[in-house]
Amino acid sequence: MKMGDLKLCLFIALVFVAACSGARNSKLLAAQTTTTMPPSPPPTVRTNIMVATRQSSTQPMQLATLPPPCPEATSTVSPPGRLRAAMKNTSFTQMNAFFDAFLVFFSDEHLSEEPAPEERRLEYISGWDGAGTAAVLAEGGAALWVPSGDVTRAKDTVSCAWIVLDADDPSQPTVAEWVADRIGRAGRVGGDARLTSVLEWQGISTVLQRSGLTLVHVPTLLDQLWAEEPDPARRRPDFSRIVANLHHMEYTGLQWREKVALLRRDINMSGAEAMIVTALDEVAWLLNVRGKDVPTAPLLKAFVIVSLTDVRVYAPPGKLSMPVREALSVYNCYPNSNNNNCTRVNEYTTIYSDLRRLTESKVLIPTAGTFQRGASAAIAMAVPQPKRMYQPSPIIYLKAQKNEAEVKGMHRAHLRDAVAMCTLLSYMEGMMKTGLTELSVAMKVDVTRATQAGYVGVSMATRVAFGPSGAEPDYRATNSTKNRRVFTNSTLVIRSGGQYDEGTTVVTRTLHYGAPTHQMRTAYTTVLRSLAAMSTLQMPSALPAAHIDPVARAPLWAAKQDYPHPTGHGVGAALNRREDPVVIDYRQDTNLHNFREGYFITSEPAWYERAKFGVRLGNVLEVVLRPDGYLGFTEATLLPFEPKLIDKKQLTEYEMKWINAYNDRIRKIVGPELQSQGLLDVYYWMTNKTVHIEPMKMNKPANHGHISVVSWSLVVGVVVFSVFA
Amino acid sequence: MKMGDLKLCLFIALVFVAACSGARNSKLLAAQTTTTMPPSPPPTVRTNIMVATRQSSTQPMQLATLPPPCPEATSTVSPPGRLRAAMKNTSFTQMNAFFDAFLVFFSDEHLSEEPAPEERRLEYISGWDGAGTAAVLAEGGAALWVPSGDVTRAKDTVSCAWIVLDADDPSQPTVAEWVADRIGRAGRVGGDARLTSVLEWQGISTVLQRSGLTLVHVPTLLDQLWAEEPDPARRRPDFSRIVANLHHMEYTGLQWREKVALLRRDINMSGAEAMIVTALDEVAWLLNVRGKDVPTAPLLKAFVIVSLTDVRVYAPPGKLSMPVREALSVYNCYPNSNNNNCTRVNEYTTIYSDLRRLTESKVLIPTAGTFQRGASAAIAMAVPQPKRMYQPSPIIYLKAQKNEAEVKGMHRAHLRDAVAMCTLLSYMEGMMKTGLTELSVAMKVDVTRATQAGYVGVSMATRVAFGPSGAEPDYRATNSTKNRRVFTNSTLVIRSGGQYDEGTTVVTRTLHYGAPTHQMRTAYTTVLRSLAAMSTLQMPSALPAAHIDPVARAPLWAAKQDYPHPTGHGVGAALNRREDPVVIDYRQDTNLHNFREGYFITSEPAWYERAKFGVRLGNVLEVVLRPDGYLGFTEATLLPFEPKLIDKKQLTEYEMKWINAYNDRIRKIVGPELQSQGLLDVYYWMTNKTVHIEPMKMNKPANHGHISVVSWSLVVGVVVFSVFA
Repeated sequence: MKMGDLKLCLFIALVFVAACSGARNSKLLAAQTTTTMPPSPPPTVRTNIMVATRQSSTQPMQLATLPPPCPEATSTVSPPGRLRAAMKNTSFTQMNAFFDAFLVFFSDEHLSEEPAPEERRLEYISGWDGAGTAAVLAEGGAALWVPSGDVTRAKDTVSCAWIVLDADDPSQPTVAEWVADRIGRAGRVGGDARLTSVLEWQGISTVLQRSGLTLVHVPTLLDQLWAEEPDPARRRPDFSRIVANLHHMEYTGLQWREKVALLRRDINMSGAEAMIVTALDEVAWLLNVRGKDVPTAPLLKAFVIVSLTDVRVYAPPGKLSMPVREALSVYNCYPNSNNNNCTRVNEYTTIYSDLRRLTESKVLIPTAGTFQRGASAAIAMAVPQPKRMYQPSPIIYLKAQKNEAEVKGMHRAHLRDAVAMCTLLSYMEGMMKTGLTELSVAMKVDVTRATQAGYVGVSMATRVAFGPSGAEPDYRATNSTKNRRVFTNSTLVIRSGGQYDEGTTVVTRTLHYGAPTHQMRTAYTTVLRSLAAMSTLQMPSALPAAHIDPVARAPLWAAKQDYPHPTGHGVGAALNRREDPVVIDYRQDTNLHNFREGYFITSEPAWYERAKFGVRLGNVLEVVLRPDGYLGFTEATLLPFEPKLIDKKQLTEYEMKWINAYNDRIRKIVGPELQSQGLLDVYYWMTNKTVHIEPMKMNKPANHGHISVVSWSLVVGVVVFSVFA
Repeated sequence: MKMGDLKLCLFIALVFVAACSGARNSKLLAAQTTTTMPPSPPPTVRTNIMVATRQSSTQPMQLATLPPPCPEATSTVSPPGRLRAAMKNTSFTQMNAFFDAFLVFFSDEHLSEEPAPEERRLEYISGWDGAGTAAVLAEGGAALWVPSGDVTRAKDTVSCAWIVLDADDPSQPTVAEWVADRIGRAGRVGGDARLTSVLEWQGISTVLQRSGLTLVHVPTLLDQLWAEEPDPARRRPDFSRIVANLHHMEYTGLQWREKVALLRRDINMSGAEAMIVTALDEVAWLLNVRGKDVPTAPLLKAFVIVSLTDVRVYAPPGKLSMPVREALSVYNCYPNSNNNNCTRVNEYTTIYSDLRRLTESKVLIPTAGTFQRGASAAIAMAVPQPKRMYQPSPIIYLKAQKNEAEVKGMHRAHLRDAVAMCTLLSYMEGMMKTGLTELSVAMKVDVTRATQAGYVGVSMATRVAFGPSGAEPDYRATNSTKNRRVFTNSTLVIRSGGQYDEGTTVVTRTLHYGAPTHQMRTAYTTVLRSLAAMSTLQMPSALPAAHIDPVARAPLWAAKQDYPHPTGHGVGAALNRREDPVVIDYRQDTNLHNFREGYFITSEPAWYERAKFGVRLGNVLEVVLRPDGYLGFTEATLLPFEPKLIDKKQLTEYEMKWINAYNDRIRKIVGPELQSQGLLDVYYWMTNKTVHIEPMKMNKPANHGHISVVSWSLVVGVVVFSVFA
């Protein structure tokens, strides 16, 4: 008796302490500063060129007019003003000719979706932090092209010197058309071909040529200008000096030599003798290294050339840690050393000159996928014309299919993420009265995730949207203009993800801290049914991945709801949050890649109720092999749904069965972890949210299951505690 | 009291009389002879060439060996024997060179899916009545290529002189490879290019050329041979002399001149000055005529050339009825008459010479769709090379989108079909003891349908499959070998369709006349759920039609069941049962046609339980416009499902709602028609089969609904009778 009492007492005390420490932690961590990242650019921006070409040949383009003159437009100290001066200054142009216009691209030399701060030349010039392309005219006038979803925010961001154009709208002029029309005569246009794709560069060049304009690759002008920026606030940030570390066999499952062997087999099969690896996630995957050179993925800024006999890495030698240098055998690895088990490390910037002098007769230059944008125009142009062989990178498929170690890592990462998110969501319920805003919630998400072991950083800029904000698919709260307060009368959508040593996660949940309306519950339940339809789908392996989209969307379509974004995409293993080849979107008909066992993808259906509220749910799914050659999915994400928002009258028994099985898995996998970490309050929160759903029956009290589970949880808690004691 | 008694008495008597007359009718009709038609060939046969070309370049082909010598192989009086002699006889070859091999194609000059008996040259030569291609070698040896599903039946059908090859199996040699390998030297191969597509002809020709063989178009040899056939049993049937009639405005909704105007707009847009209309359903649609020249569709064998200024019809003049000739204004329509509202009728056979002398500079030659195989090689080759412009026929899209009159006609045809099929299925239940076989059931289906007003003929050869037969997707009962008796211990699948003046129908139902097993009920319920998933789908109009396939198949995939045929395809309006452009099949990735309002398509999911039984259900659906630009479906087919085979425990409430709404529509639309035709016994059968399905509830007797509906039906019957009395 006494022993039992004591244990119960200690147990309650422990729960209390845990709760207090949790609250203290979150306050403590909230005080730390976090950097918010701009959203990753939608892949649509790439299609401009083709649209433009098609349009220009059929009908005259309606060209956007210039904005009225404003002080910023004529400033000579603003970046565009300084750019205009540089365009006519031979110490910048480094040739005897000036430029009539200059194009500024937003990405880095690897065409990363999210470039590092020191690569954001477009932001330096225009102030716009998202994806896009800018054109600055020597005689005054500047325009910025951004994806459809970003037009409003871009207009709010840039100064009156800029006009903002919709890059996805075929009725608006393209970069080339606008520039050609504004200049109105033969001339020269400058731009940095290192920062854009072959397709885009050639597309712009072709259209400009028709108007007698020449597009010239000028790699130094803009960087020199930025380096000499007098305003400290605008000065170029330093390059990251953080060294890249080894990604251990425990996570990779394969030695870099084994990966190079697989890649060589594919290079050989394609008829090439070498390949330039330009995408940063491909470099990281291939060499088994992880760095910190871009904001939302653990990547090292480097190029690799893999030939059939050697491997050349282009990175500042100081950026590789000792273990990496040892693992890659960089010492005593000389040209013609006939040792194809080592790696030659060259200075990053020498890639272009080396490509011009390649001895291989055919070189595979990666073309664009959906998220992977392929090699830059400068890389492609550096390879002598007859040696160029454009093809999708074979690494896309090697990387997408996770091996046993990677699958295990993804599971561990998702377990860590589940602990973080359960912790966050359980504490959130008690915080409603503390005056939360969208940005403060986002900060809490980030700091909670940061407490997890193996945490490296965010995998995407955390996006929190309350009420009407949630109805905008591309919504992003900002410090300056939009940062809604979070109340209890509408839905709160939290989209976020983490990078862990073991893998990459991304998860979306929608919450409500008051009494949801019937419409909100219908929206949530319908989105949940969409998630269920995809999760429970079993399909023949011959089915192209994109074709499962109607299965996922059917419940939403039945309610005349459709979301403008893809239902899902590939997820990397401790790499990018979004990776090729899978994109599940019925609007992308031509993407006919199949699923393979070991792929990880997202499922992210949503209901956007215009100007009112939004519901979005997102899980990561693992593609698993089922008997008879069928493929199916298992959820990697293990985070409960909000029972309050589920209208079980709208669920079929098949769907209830799926939710119950999912909840059982959460309890079984996340439960012990929460307990072993002593997060008992979080554990009870989790068990409460994963109560078994039963079909409607009249003769049972509504909260019967709820009560029984709570008491059951208490019993389990006591037992666990007894074991510890 | 007395009045009431009298009425009830009379009513019962009426029911009795109706039942008797129905039985008498069916016996009477059963005595009539009906012709059974061969199955329509799957479209896959067309793909041989590409597969062959791909294969031959990568690996050596495993060439099928010749069968052991047998009397038929060396017979000189058999058709292959006579063909061999003709190949070396200048009075046949009409040139100074002989042939080392001769190819025989199965179709007619319009590449119809089901050629008329007098066009079945392949059947004459080989005895094979299905789709395929034959090759006869001068030095002995003959082979027949048929689609995968037909291989067994073909082997059973043809004599020992033939080897049968699978046209869909890339590991087997193609026609050209086999011929080239057998001849083994340079030489000449004959064939009738009028009877095969451009793609197939050129594909064969290219492969033959590599071995020094020349493919020569010989249009007369085989026909002359057949005309001189000494065996009366093999003699060529006479061409049909039935004249083509006008298809009235009530059914067409558009005058032929309006259709020609629409077509000219499309021809003009494509950059051509004329188009050759070769597909028979396109000719019938364009000219608003209907004939009886092919077995399963009301079509006239004719070609049409539509230029921007005139319309030329190639048909034997005697085949057009007076009203047709008047409607088409064929009188006083001369070349250069500058009257583009009239039609010049020329002799059918002059099309080839006329094409050689065309004055138009560009001529649209239809390419193959899925069911439409495009223009023949002879048609294409008759057009001078620089004038050829290969494109899909614009009529495909014009014809697929039914106008108001055609939609109305389709509804009326389906109502007639519902009456016929309800009548058949209600009588079937009492006939189980009369020793039915698959063929006798098929005959009953045909004669019952033939009693309907406006009935023109079958739209497909009726296929009935009992027990294990139903597990074979391509099963066809035959008089000779396979004709299973129908018992009460398994499922009976009935696939059939009718051609009516107003439209075309096709329907599949699965029945059981005993106590179905749990597995059979699961199979039936799953197929029903698949039908429900597609029928209830609401989708954005941008969704390619083929992409809805996973929605339809998901319930079956969940049970690891998949059917080898498409889920659905377009249906013509008083035209072909299968028409382009819609094919719903996840294996046909490249077919990206969208649905449009007014399309009619089939939905035909199936569960084939190998060697045991089959379940297949097929409805015709109308594509309808829903608010907000969404598209949805409404069933055109109005035939009840079998409640006995439905396991409602496996149905969701959404699915029950769909079935109940479907049943309500059957009662509302078919019910009054059955009553007005005095088919009261059929009417009661129908009401019994369309009883409302309710979710499982414990406190109600299982057959409560059943009883109430029967009593309700009686009440209605009495009321109806009272009104009549």
